[in-house]
Amino acid sequence: MASAPGKVILFGEHAVVYGEPAIAAAIRRRVYVSVEEIATDRIEIESRNLKIRESMRLEKCTRGELEGVSAELKPLWHLCHKMLELHGHPLKHGLRVEIRSEIPESAGLGSSAALATALALALKEIFSVDMSPNDIWNIAFESEKIVHGRPSGIDNTLSLHGGVILYRKGSMKRIRLGQTIPLVVGDTGVSRSTGKMVARVRMLREKYPDVIEEVIRAIGRLSLLSVQALVDGDLEKLGDLMNINQGLLEALGVSSPEISMLVNAARKAGALGAKLTGAGGGGCIIALPAKNAINNVVESIKRVGRDAFLAEIEFEGARIESGGAHG
Amino acid sequence: MASAPGKVILFGEHAVVYGEPAIAAAIRRRVYVSVEEIATDRIEIESRNLKIRESMRLEKCTRGELEGVSAELKPLWHLCHKMLELHGHPLKHGLRVEIRSEIPESAGLGSSAALATALALALKEIFSVDMSPNDIWNIAFESEKIVHGRPSGIDNTLSLHGGVILYRKGSMKRIRLGQTIPLVVGDTGVSRSTGKMVARVRMLREKYPDVIEEVIRAIGRLSLLSVQALVDGDLEKLGDLMNINQGLLEALGVSSPEISMLVNAARKAGALGAKLTGAGGGGCIIALPAKNAINNVVESIKRVGRDAFLAEIEFEGARIESGGAHG
Repeated sequence: MASAPGKVILFGEHAVVYGEPAIAAAIRRRVYVSVEEIATDRIEIESRNLKIRESMRLEKCTRGELEGVSAELKPLWHLCHKMLELHGHPLKHGLRVEIRSEIPESAGLGSSAALATALALALKEIFSVDMSPNDIWNIAFESEKIVHGRPSGIDNTLSLHGGVILYRKGSMKRIRLGQTIPLVVGDTGVSRSTGKMVARVRMLREKYPDVIEEVIRAIGRLSLLSVQALVDGDLEKLGDLMNINQGLLEALGVSSPEISMLVNAARKAGALGAKLTGAGGGGCIIALPAKNAINNVVESIKRVGRDAFLAEIEFEGARIESGGAHG
Repeated sequence: MASAPGKVILFGEHAVVYGEPAIAAAIRRRVYVSVEEIATDRIEIESRNLKIRESMRLEKCTRGELEGVSAELKPLWHLCHKMLELHGHPLKHGLRVEIRSEIPESAGLGSSAALATALALALKEIFSVDMSPNDIWNIAFESEKIVHGRPSGIDNTLSLHGGVILYRKGSMKRIRLGQTIPLVVGDTGVSRSTGKMVARVRMLREKYPDVIEEVIRAIGRLSLLSVQALVDGDLEKLGDLMNINQGLLEALGVSSPEISMLVNAARKAGALGAKLTGAGGGGCIIALPAKNAINNVVESIKRVGRDAFLAEIEFEGARIESGGAHG
């Protein structure tokens, strides 16, 4: 069994499209993938969360004949195919892949990258083949492309390595924190469309370049300011910056009444700051609870009828779980 | 009887403190002041809205012995005193001043300036004395200082002249519109403290100058952009700019859950844009309804339990009402 963490964007979503820096962090919510040999010539994949179970003959998967699989599991079938193609099939029998996730799907929390990363690691283990972290990254990224078209690679990096990253177009830099930071994630339950939101900002920027470029620059500056606050564990400052960032995202037109509702519920319950995370228009918010206010913040979001959970920043990336696939 | 209109800030509140331009407009909601002679030696002032009635001997008022009057009516007593001091007392008898207002008090809608302006104009008429518009402005402004400490003079100018004004620290410029623009005003019912909100922005700017100065500049640019949109009557663009401005005010920390609630209610009901107006933290919002959506927007705000009314931009300033004081 292998696992890999999800992620949140802490600061800088949307501005990153225009070359500004953004900050993302792995969170202590994982996807678990167990792989075991079974006495057939087939591969079975079962997602407990999605309640989907599919199976395919090994040879068919090796040849990459993936017609007829569900859109949800297609990236995983593709990843299995790539592994078989690269490494042959070192096992005598079929495989059973079982997926269990602590990360809500399609919520901007990196569940698809975590899933691909955990599956790649689990397959590497059961195949007993040599793969560098970079090899794992690449094969998971290939699979991610099937879901997202043009992923940034951030999700994969955080799923694989954990921790916090400052990234811009074309560069990533690790930020080392002395301690974890508690975050509460609230889920609006409204599905988001990253593409639509990115297009909305682009249109607004074309219409009002003077104003919107200034807003985007302000977000970039705020992301840079957050680095020292993260290193220092200065929660007060991080909260302020989250609140400012949320306002600037409102100005970009990517917030929503549901997001406002959760952000306000979190702040009222003792969050030092709260903002949407990811593309907006739906999806999730993150809130930084004051000391001793974690439960209050979670409960306050639940009281307005939405799901919420604690998700501390996670320093450990993908890993083999004890009592894993070979156990 | 004389009347004078209230006002709203359309764009640029708070940024104006740091030298950026802002836009304010008179609204078609008025304070009415009727003054009539009465057969006593006293002045009586009655505010129907505040349900306050006070009276004082003429001589006492002429000498400016205003101890014991209510805080609410003090600016008016002061104005009466100044008029008597300047012009003597040209009437044989006492005066009865009656006030009726269509403008919510302490909501950032310029009710105190409108009241002082209307009273000054009504007294000028009944005294039959020569006063230039500038004289009226000055005497109303003196009275305004008792309420606000350091008023900008915008409220007085709009009460006196109506219309729309672009102003910066130390300068005002009239913007000429081809037609009025409908605005819906929604009242959070939460009293605001301008001083507290200005101090909050100042503190945030001291803590995060790089970011907050960028936000303030963005607001200034947006105010300038709105000028052409106002002249053109480009409602779509004005709505966009209001929404961006609201986000930037959120970033400055002067919005509130109640403001968000009203803004979202207005947008949901067909407002092209909506934002807080004035200092924030409470007070009022303004919404720009799409054609045919005026009633929807008003009703949507009322449905969340707050007062709302239509308030078009008003081109006419203070005026003598027909059937007035001498009638």
